[in-house]
Amino acid sequence: MRRSPASARTHPLNADSPQHKLRIETVEIRADAVVLIDQLALPADERYVTCATWRDVAERIRDMTVRGAPAIGVAAAGALALAAREAVFSGGGRAAFDAALSEAAAGLAQTRPTAVNLTWAIAEMRALWQRCDAAPDECWLTLLARAREIHDDDIRRCYAIGAFGAPLFAAGAAILTHCNAGALATAGYGTALGVIRSCHERYGGAVSVFVDETRPWLQGARLTAWELGVEGIEYSVISDNMAGHFISRGEVDGIVVGADRIAANGDTANKIGTYTLSVLAKEHGVPFYVAAPLSTVDLAVAGGADIPIEERDPAEVTHFRGSRVTPAGAHARHPAFDVTPQANISAIITEVDVLRAPYDQALRLACLKGECTT
Amino acid sequence: MRRSPASARTHPLNADSPQHKLRIETVEIRADAVVLIDQLALPADERYVTCATWRDVAERIRDMTVRGAPAIGVAAAGALALAAREAVFSGGGRAAFDAALSEAAAGLAQTRPTAVNLTWAIAEMRALWQRCDAAPDECWLTLLARAREIHDDDIRRCYAIGAFGAPLFAAGAAILTHCNAGALATAGYGTALGVIRSCHERYGGAVSVFVDETRPWLQGARLTAWELGVEGIEYSVISDNMAGHFISRGEVDGIVVGADRIAANGDTANKIGTYTLSVLAKEHGVPFYVAAPLSTVDLAVAGGADIPIEERDPAEVTHFRGSRVTPAGAHARHPAFDVTPQANISAIITEVDVLRAPYDQALRLACLKGECTT
Repeated sequence: MRRSPASARTHPLNADSPQHKLRIETVEIRADAVVLIDQLALPADERYVTCATWRDVAERIRDMTVRGAPAIGVAAAGALALAAREAVFSGGGRAAFDAALSEAAAGLAQTRPTAVNLTWAIAEMRALWQRCDAAPDECWLTLLARAREIHDDDIRRCYAIGAFGAPLFAAGAAILTHCNAGALATAGYGTALGVIRSCHERYGGAVSVFVDETRPWLQGARLTAWELGVEGIEYSVISDNMAGHFISRGEVDGIVVGADRIAANGDTANKIGTYTLSVLAKEHGVPFYVAAPLSTVDLAVAGGADIPIEERDPAEVTHFRGSRVTPAGAHARHPAFDVTPQANISAIITEVDVLRAPYDQALRLACLKGECTT
Repeated sequence: MRRSPASARTHPLNADSPQHKLRIETVEIRADAVVLIDQLALPADERYVTCATWRDVAERIRDMTVRGAPAIGVAAAGALALAAREAVFSGGGRAAFDAALSEAAAGLAQTRPTAVNLTWAIAEMRALWQRCDAAPDECWLTLLARAREIHDDDIRRCYAIGAFGAPLFAAGAAILTHCNAGALATAGYGTALGVIRSCHERYGGAVSVFVDETRPWLQGARLTAWELGVEGIEYSVISDNMAGHFISRGEVDGIVVGADRIAANGDTANKIGTYTLSVLAKEHGVPFYVAAPLSTVDLAVAGGADIPIEERDPAEVTHFRGSRVTPAGAHARHPAFDVTPQANISAIITEVDVLRAPYDQALRLACLKGECTT
């Protein structure tokens, strides 16, 4: 395993948050609500949705008001704190409290199948309420505190990912990214966009970004472009099918994407289209990086073939923001994710280190230092 | 060069049009107008635009009311017949007639830079008026007849391309196509979709199609889906970024696309995104075919690097059918075509034969049998 130059300094996970000022608040965990920036309304409107129950949060995960694997995990942790509050206020005893939390955990787990950070966050919260032997009120407060910790930890992890990732690029690099693995996909700062933000800070602004628009949901054109605009980072939006053209012309120095689940062997599920980018990168000798916290690593899954791929409503393909594009009655397919084989990945940038092949070993070692999903 | 089984029968170019009934009329060349199906309105509305002058046609080529390399060539031929008519009716002498046609030819040549069939059709018409030594009236009628011949020839060429291409696929094949190289991109029947139509006829309907939606103009989702629906051919629309997923899972038996210009060495310019498909095909050992009439072959261009790539308005990327997707002020890029190197092409299906590498030889030989652009 090669160590990034950053590892010689104070470990980023232990450093105070860097010079970066968080300008985007994706998920706020209040005692009585989880507040989400509405990612369906961006970039036209910046508005916030207040979820008063875990069911509200589950619905907002399902309809993608909140999306991005780490952000979903954080929102689910907040939702379980809300479920605990509801159980306390409804006045049942400990059995009712446990039953309510189990129901909420099961309901939240079903919202999206591919991102494993959801499973991870639920397991973190479950461990806590199962070993809490205090009164329900106290257990609720413990859960609320843990949810807020998961939120804050997520930001620190993103800072660390950024610090480890930036040295992989030179000043002035043109970096291509897909979907949104940014502040909006996490509690803040972002994974892939964390690396790009960190490059922007490290190189005094000398970085530019190709933003894949990312059909059908346009997370790139809507969300990543919005984030980069907020930060003042130079970017160009392109249709997904233009990436190959710019890569083949030598205009792309590297690719960095997020991840929804990383298998024990390094195979990575991420937004549909990621796999194609990895093939183009290999064809042209361009480095292809995955940036993700260790909670995205699922040691229980041996390889990519075992990762469930969510098929979403084909109407999201036949329609474009609500208006029909195809002829009436057109058939469409909509796999929301694809799997990039580990052989196509130059490195996995985590909050504990930059991991290189052989990934099975590197991931096992990294998981000893951090919190993976098992 | 391997010969397709079809070459043992009557040569398709000499055969009467096959059992296929043309259900779509893309370009109609009348004495007093060129009538175009409005490809901006499809699939929601099937309506027709009547162009009374060559300038109207030029504007409709530029704004993509008519698009597709062969269809543009046919429309331009019709436009030059209109220019001749206008010159005759304005009553000038032979010098005025020639000047009017030269002006129209220059204006039409500037509408779209990548598709070479436009250049080819203009050259065909120019050769005719330059050697016409009759009165302007007679020369006009000769030009009108030639434009109609170019129209009808284009359909016959598509039939031949279909007949040569279909045997490259087995019954039941799942074929992926990009953009629209169909009846709407030609005078009728189509090149890549001509091959698919021919498979549909040959195999009693046992063929299915993955239709790349083809951002930003959505020629796949709008036009190819509409054509396949009209023909009753089974298809699924997918986002461009999903192709790699289905190819990697073995769900695609072959890829067939059209071409806007084929260089002397076989490098092929086609709709943006084509290059990426060729890389995916190579990665997975899936055949990748280009289907185009010889008028698409430009022997004057040695290789793909010399083909001009049209950059269109970035607003076509930042907006979706008129409504803004990206944040206000977002920067975007919009190359409308890319180049697929000849090494990634399994065969070029033309109206005279299925051409295989080495393409420089195969194309030179084919051009002896047909009409290439030089």
